[in-house]
Amino acid sequence: MSKAKQVAMPNIPVLIDGLQYNNWTRDVFEQMRAGGVDCVHVTIVYWENTFETISNIADWNQRFVQYSDLIMPVRCAADVQRAQETGRTGIVFGFQNCSPIDNDVFLIEIFHQLGVRFMQLTYNNQSPLATGCYEDTDSGVTRFGKQAISEMNRVGMVVDMSHSAEQSTLDAIELSTRPIAITHANPTFFEPALRNKSDTVLRALGESGGMLGFSMYPFHLKDGPDCTLKSFCEMVARTADLMGVDHIGIGSDLCQSQPTSILTWMRNGRWSIDKDYGEGSASNASWPAQPSWFENNLDFGNIAAGLAEHGMHQDEIAKVMGGNWLRFFEQSFAPA
Amino acid sequence: MSKAKQVAMPNIPVLIDGLQYNNWTRDVFEQMRAGGVDCVHVTIVYWENTFETISNIADWNQRFVQYSDLIMPVRCAADVQRAQETGRTGIVFGFQNCSPIDNDVFLIEIFHQLGVRFMQLTYNNQSPLATGCYEDTDSGVTRFGKQAISEMNRVGMVVDMSHSAEQSTLDAIELSTRPIAITHANPTFFEPALRNKSDTVLRALGESGGMLGFSMYPFHLKDGPDCTLKSFCEMVARTADLMGVDHIGIGSDLCQSQPTSILTWMRNGRWSIDKDYGEGSASNASWPAQPSWFENNLDFGNIAAGLAEHGMHQDEIAKVMGGNWLRFFEQSFAPA
Repeated sequence: MSKAKQVAMPNIPVLIDGLQYNNWTRDVFEQMRAGGVDCVHVTIVYWENTFETISNIADWNQRFVQYSDLIMPVRCAADVQRAQETGRTGIVFGFQNCSPIDNDVFLIEIFHQLGVRFMQLTYNNQSPLATGCYEDTDSGVTRFGKQAISEMNRVGMVVDMSHSAEQSTLDAIELSTRPIAITHANPTFFEPALRNKSDTVLRALGESGGMLGFSMYPFHLKDGPDCTLKSFCEMVARTADLMGVDHIGIGSDLCQSQPTSILTWMRNGRWSIDKDYGEGSASNASWPAQPSWFENNLDFGNIAAGLAEHGMHQDEIAKVMGGNWLRFFEQSFAPA
Repeated sequence: MSKAKQVAMPNIPVLIDGLQYNNWTRDVFEQMRAGGVDCVHVTIVYWENTFETISNIADWNQRFVQYSDLIMPVRCAADVQRAQETGRTGIVFGFQNCSPIDNDVFLIEIFHQLGVRFMQLTYNNQSPLATGCYEDTDSGVTRFGKQAISEMNRVGMVVDMSHSAEQSTLDAIELSTRPIAITHANPTFFEPALRNKSDTVLRALGESGGMLGFSMYPFHLKDGPDCTLKSFCEMVARTADLMGVDHIGIGSDLCQSQPTSILTWMRNGRWSIDKDYGEGSASNASWPAQPSWFENNLDFGNIAAGLAEHGMHQDEIAKVMGGNWLRFFEQSFAPA
């Protein structure tokens, strides 16, 4: 192991995180400001149905009033600049499941009107649209899934396949006329979790103009909570070689200050009578510890510094830390 | 073709139809009485969500008051006898889709409490539970599907795979600890419709103690609306040889007095932007004509007579016309 070289802290023109699901309090938003976070894609749905989803959006509408000094909604890429200019963090809404649209393809436009810009076709399990990464058999994108992708393409809602199975993800890349995203996952070459993505998927994603957001959720990291920053940055560099440096960003999957009951709900929703432990186990059912170099929104600088330390160029670091997501937002959020 | 022999009209101790979805008016219920129909499994859901389903049940509750001289709810097999004794037709609720339970396995017991006794795991398309018969790829029963079957077994709700794909149906037969049903479909040896069932499925269904209800919906019949009663009865006899005469019944799929808009909705729900024509086509988008020997609830006697004409024994005809369904209800509707 070589001794760390001294490198200048890289300049980050725009800092965007491709996914967080925190217990939303003033403290968290203040940390976002202190950490220089310009925009975050926040999860507003794991299992919620249509009306529960609308309530969650209403809760966010209230937060935009209550914390108007710290946050603002992002509906288009230009809103990120407005957030920067007014010293706030822009918030993009996304679903980790298709449960809000029920069996109604026309609800996609309704939720776009309400500000939703990302939707996963599946969350771990089979959905009416596609197969999740924890199913035994992956039948790909379904009849309804094809209709939904077409409608998402039309209105400007990004297809997110973070929790989907391999063939379904390849199908979505192929079927979607606009680039898709894997907002929060890592390559399986780094950690062979069911949630991480194969070289085949990542290559197809890069070639199609899509985006991968690197996750700092310990179950997606080599050595879990003990993953080193060096190891993480090596993975970023190798993925840049695989996909192209224009197609990678951050998708931290930060779930700050959430109780274990939330993790249990994320894993089980209300679909399972037998308890499901996801990537954990009965004896390890709680949240994993975060790696020391990424505990909260104050720590993005560590990643930028780590990438510089690893020898990544300043302009490439700027892309990874937010430039690529901003370009992707510009391409993705408006109606076709 | 031999000239028809004169045979005595068979005695039918109990007449049960395994599926209807009519435009429910007094006329229809009066026809049921005139036709001697003791019990009908009625569809109350194709695409409806939880709250729409509850509204549909509330509509039925009102019908039970309004038409209390003609119909009554059936929650257990003994209710069929009560219907007979009071000269009414018993009504069993069923779902043709799992949409009412959303992503919530615990809603299965709630709907059982509200009187629902059958639920299809899929309606043509992929569902969160299993694969429908019109999908290209059939991945079988899913993670959630396994939980749902287990819960349906516990509370006493019958797994119905009428609109499901082959592997999913075989999986359901295997996974379910209680016999399942295919309430309305025919063998593919009779008519190779995607909705009909292979010998493999029918043999497994019979061996597991399950039930098949023969459909009179023209798209499931050889020669469609021109299907002869003789041809239908030959099919019944051949299926009895394949599955055992204790495992077959009627599931007419009668959709009386429904406008074409209902058929369009059954096919498309709100999942498709492109118009889906199901078993029809753009140039043949409306309801098919019923075969002359089965136009409505007055015509069950034609089938019984046809079976007698075909040489089926009196006790076997009694089983097919309702005895088997009654035994199946006795085994299936109570908590395990």
